[in-house]
Amino acid sequence: MIRIGIVGYGYWGPNLVRNFFALSECDVVAVSDLDSARLSLVSRQYPSIRTFLGSTELIGNLAIDAVVIATPVHTHFDLAMSALKAGKHVLVEKPITSSSEQAKRLIQEAEKRGLVLMVDHTFLYTGAVQKLKEEVQKKTFGDLLYYDSTRVSFGLYQPDVNVLWDLAVHDLSIMSHIVGAVPREVSATGRASMPGQPEDAAYLTVYFDTSIAHVNVNWLSPVKARRTVVGGTGRMIVYDDVEPSEKIKVYDKSVSLGTKPDDVHKNLVSYRIGNMESPRISDTEALFSEATHFIDCIQRGTSPLSSGAQGLEVVSVLEAANRSLSDRGAPHLVNLE
Amino acid sequence: MIRIGIVGYGYWGPNLVRNFFALSECDVVAVSDLDSARLSLVSRQYPSIRTFLGSTELIGNLAIDAVVIATPVHTHFDLAMSALKAGKHVLVEKPITSSSEQAKRLIQEAEKRGLVLMVDHTFLYTGAVQKLKEEVQKKTFGDLLYYDSTRVSFGLYQPDVNVLWDLAVHDLSIMSHIVGAVPREVSATGRASMPGQPEDAAYLTVYFDTSIAHVNVNWLSPVKARRTVVGGTGRMIVYDDVEPSEKIKVYDKSVSLGTKPDDVHKNLVSYRIGNMESPRISDTEALFSEATHFIDCIQRGTSPLSSGAQGLEVVSVLEAANRSLSDRGAPHLVNLE
Amino acid sequence: MIRIGIVGYGYWGPNLVRNFFALSECDVVAVSDLDSARLSLVSRQYPSIRTFLGSTELIGNLAIDAVVIATPVHTHFDLAMSALKAGKHVLVEKPITSSSEQAKRLIQEAEKRGLVLMVDHTFLYTGAVQKLKEEVQKKTFGDLLYYDSTRVSFGLYQPDVNVLWDLAVHDLSIMSHIVGAVPREVSATGRASMPGQPEDAAYLTVYFDTSIAHVNVNWLSPVKARRTVVGGTGRMIVYDDVEPSEKIKVYDKSVSLGTKPDDVHKNLVSYRIGNMESPRISDTEALFSEATHFIDCIQRGTSPLSSGAQGLEVVSVLEAANRSLSDRGAPHLVNLE
Amino acid sequence: MIRIGIVGYGYWGPNLVRNFFALSECDVVAVSDLDSARLSLVSRQYPSIRTFLGSTELIGNLAIDAVVIATPVHTHFDLAMSALKAGKHVLVEKPITSSSEQAKRLIQEAEKRGLVLMVDHTFLYTGAVQKLKEEVQKKTFGDLLYYDSTRVSFGLYQPDVNVLWDLAVHDLSIMSHIVGAVPREVSATGRASMPGQPEDAAYLTVYFDTSIAHVNVNWLSPVKARRTVVGGTGRMIVYDDVEPSEKIKVYDKSVSLGTKPDDVHKNLVSYRIGNMESPRISDTEALFSEATHFIDCIQRGTSPLSSGAQGLEVVSVLEAANRSLSDRGAPHLVNLE
Repeated sequence: MIRIGIVGYGYWGPNLVRNFFALSECDVVAVSDLDSARLSLVSRQYPSIRTFLGSTELIGNLAIDAVVIATPVHTHFDLAMSALKAGKHVLVEKPITSSSEQAKRLIQEAEKRGLVLMVDHTFLYTGAVQKLKEEVQKKTFGDLLYYDSTRVSFGLYQPDVNVLWDLAVHDLSIMSHIVGAVPREVSATGRASMPGQPEDAAYLTVYFDTSIAHVNVNWLSPVKARRTVVGGTGRMIVYDDVEPSEKIKVYDKSVSLGTKPDDVHKNLVSYRIGNMESPRISDTEALFSEATHFIDCIQRGTSPLSSGAQGLEVVSVLEAANRSLSDRGAPHLVNLE
Repeated sequence: MIRIGIVGYGYWGPNLVRNFFALSECDVVAVSDLDSARLSLVSRQYPSIRTFLGSTELIGNLAIDAVVIATPVHTHFDLAMSALKAGKHVLVEKPITSSSEQAKRLIQEAEKRGLVLMVDHTFLYTGAVQKLKEEVQKKTFGDLLYYDSTRVSFGLYQPDVNVLWDLAVHDLSIMSHIVGAVPREVSATGRASMPGQPEDAAYLTVYFDTSIAHVNVNWLSPVKARRTVVGGTGRMIVYDDVEPSEKIKVYDKSVSLGTKPDDVHKNLVSYRIGNMESPRISDTEALFSEATHFIDCIQRGTSPLSSGAQGLEVVSVLEAANRSLSDRGAPHLVNLE
Repeated sequence: MIRIGIVGYGYWGPNLVRNFFALSECDVVAVSDLDSARLSLVSRQYPSIRTFLGSTELIGNLAIDAVVIATPVHTHFDLAMSALKAGKHVLVEKPITSSSEQAKRLIQEAEKRGLVLMVDHTFLYTGAVQKLKEEVQKKTFGDLLYYDSTRVSFGLYQPDVNVLWDLAVHDLSIMSHIVGAVPREVSATGRASMPGQPEDAAYLTVYFDTSIAHVNVNWLSPVKARRTVVGGTGRMIVYDDVEPSEKIKVYDKSVSLGTKPDDVHKNLVSYRIGNMESPRISDTEALFSEATHFIDCIQRGTSPLSSGAQGLEVVSVLEAANRSLSDRGAPHLVNLE
Repeated sequence: MIRIGIVGYGYWGPNLVRNFFALSECDVVAVSDLDSARLSLVSRQYPSIRTFLGSTELIGNLAIDAVVIATPVHTHFDLAMSALKAGKHVLVEKPITSSSEQAKRLIQEAEKRGLVLMVDHTFLYTGAVQKLKEEVQKKTFGDLLYYDSTRVSFGLYQPDVNVLWDLAVHDLSIMSHIVGAVPREVSATGRASMPGQPEDAAYLTVYFDTSIAHVNVNWLSPVKARRTVVGGTGRMIVYDDVEPSEKIKVYDKSVSLGTKPDDVHKNLVSYRIGNMESPRISDTEALFSEATHFIDCIQRGTSPLSSGAQGLEVVSVLEAANRSLSDRGAPHLVNLE
């Protein structure tokens, strides 16, 4: 039985506690927060869980095997490093750290100690993204042409990171998971609408060797959208996470070069349009699948899908994106060595 | 009674003929095309209209007062210049020309001769964009934060221009019309999926002095979208042109900086969310309003909304976008002098 | 070359003229209307077509082979009968007549003279309904459980028939086409909101031998809907005609009786949920396909899909519905002998 | 502090426990179920709650002030009567009982003992229905013309009641709440698709004195819909509960009788179309508001919105509907004395 301690009971923490609590393979034994009012919520709902004001005692506690960190980004590195050094397995909120340098050090520490280091790239554990990956890997999909995502909503400014580090991180992890191509270079533009606050709208292009990705993220959109289009030479897939059902639609559409121009447009491109299919998707809560996977990796000593290495890749792209953002879109290489 | 000749009866020409034909203030007297099969379609439907194989005779015809040009972009300049030199008023398909240099020369020629030079920026004449402008200019809208547009569909590759010159031109003309801010600099990225063909997916950021615009255009999207969000400090507007009704939705949403952090996210931004209102929109066909406006400008000697100058501005932004596209997103100034 | 005369150039007439005009296998030679202002619209748009004030001269004209009738319902019988007696093939707006008695007499007259009698049940000629029929007839669909349709919009009150005779007629013809089951009995309820006007909202249940249909029609709905669900024991199909694409969605869903109750609901029914597929649909305009079919039936001497007999069946159901409506929903048999 | 016991931990019970648990004004002290596996779920999630196999001990427990009943419909009367007789306030799942006779006896018993008797008509406590009522009561809405609701989904067959008693009950309670008109007569039709099971599709018309309501309910619809249109002489409201936001849309549309016919349709009805407004809606979970209201009624000794009397009215309409259903739609009076 893996004993879990959770650091941070703010916005995301309650979801983590609820899901780990529901898992029979582990025990949530402790929760910490800096705010005692939040801790009394824990005690009311889960009388069996011990609470700690501040993380130090929790992380140092010998009766805890694994630590889940759900705190602001700038605290991730210190908390995760302390936990690893205390011999705990670690699951940390996304993005893994504030810098690639920090991510590398966590990875090294975890490797050295043989501990699981996992980052909470939640979307990888949704039925929709699992199905998306399956569809992209089919022969009929062909080669990837582009990945184009819009992830916008109203509210939920983050105080310590910009909107790319908050929202584009989801797309970068999904791309890493389903595409597997290496992000070579980025161009990012954006805008900070509120004086003294981070960028709330940003547009990121990622160049792979033979395809391109684009991500539009915004904290100030009046309507929520989480719409991703993945275009292949044989199929085109729309993943709309706001849809209550039919989140994935696979379009049998493709284009090809002809040898003589059409009548009306005088061009050489011809189109094939077939049926659309929307595969059934598992509706298990993503965080439950993720919690299960974390416990499973600990028990088997295997590496998680959303490993420290993937966390590092995502942060490396975000670092390049920040540099490009300062340069008003000038291309910056992703430093991946 | 203004006598109209229309050059080009391909994809767009029939719409132009139909609308000018329905107008009682003008007569469509002639249509030309390079393809005699297209001309016989004209004769069948409109026995009263003369047809010409090739434009030369039409443009030179003394019985014609105004020429409407609906041909591929690379032919716009020569045809429009010939028509102006023959003393005809000119309405030309978008984009006005292949270069800002050409646009300037057309503007000079039209001015010198006191002729109307208008570019077919159709969207300006839709009820939706008219309402959008009205809403943006209300005091309650506040200051513009961003303009964010997605204009994608499947099919309709253009043979002689890339997707920016085909689709982003709509957004650039709408922005010019409703915002009136000067586009200073651009960053553009994109991809050509088909060897030897122009870019079919592109992402364009335009920097104004105090706001930003972003346009996502794609010829290879499995689903059609024409969705524009215009964010202001007081209101946020969604314009969805694919909606059969309720194309414009005005959201009473805004954010402001607070003085103390909220409980759960520890940040200083607070939100106001009110009602949404969808104003009634005129459903007159845009091209009919545009044809009426063209005739009206000729009769009154006034300058059109979509003037040569606006056509020039749009082409200047597109030229900078093409330069940035070659530089993988590096910022390029818009040359507007 | 079949020579066509069209009687009535009100709301629907222009669509008929446009589509027959575009057909190369026929000539639209004449149009009549009671309003000279409408006729001058014809002349302006189609200078080649002769116009007549009133239908008498058109129907009697020897140079006309077939008459298309697009006038108010109460005039259908007299006009169609005159045309048949003058030896013309007839296509008449839906519903075919004001009574089943009238429909029978038209059918007899057409049979006696060997003329085509066709009713304009437009929806049968849409790509969507053709695909719907194809899907319903597949073995995987199983047996029909129910047909449930909502056909509502704002506006377009008819002066001389109630909303069932205006809108439910579409569903009755679609059902007749795709299901082929015999409508045995009906129950209808409804309401007339405007004093002295016909019912503007009505609800019709049709009993077949082993299935049921329900149609909800309304002229006073603030939003337009044309949504039909066809439930089978093996598949369930949604046909949404307001959707710009994906009008037909085939759901791989079904239920079956189990042998032991489930955990939470204690019932015996178990569910199967699979993928959804949206087949590609032809986008030929329905009225064009219908016009082609009418000409084809004349040329080959074959019976149309939307025959006089189908028109009679639909009117017979509507007559029973009117009786039930007066009886506040009491069941009334459909008189089909 | 009100002490709550909850009888039944099947499909709905967990939602009740969660919401009452979150309320600070009450304590959930006990839960009972007939299935010990369900009870162990309670213990795991809420270690502080006592569990009972079977309801007898819970209902008789002196340390409990109020009993919440979430069991199959046929058990409601006995459980509620026992609880009232034991001096407990009662909140019972909808529909309140299996017959109007039973409902009357519960009402009498509660009155006699001065106890709160409330029925779980959840929708009354949603922000959407509260806003709907507000809009219907505005002067601009005018007089009610019709209430038209579609409430369909896939799955969730009830073993002991038909689909009207499961789903139409929501609409009947909403109508009772927002309209306040007396349901005089009903016509109901429907179908049982599964041998030996209750009707799974049904269509109910309710006649009020000056308006009409129609409800379409179905357990075998491939797609979920909860769409209600409320038409007034001055405004028309669409309430779509499946929409994540913008659940209520108020259309400024109306019709009126003119004095001369229009051009094209020759009818006398003219239309007014204005803006649409979607008011902001509170997003408090309905069950939380309802739980709060129940506690509040107990503490103040006031009568709940969803009182026993409303429960009785709904059941009386359902009884008439069942009679009409057996008569294939024949009208049946609602017995309300």
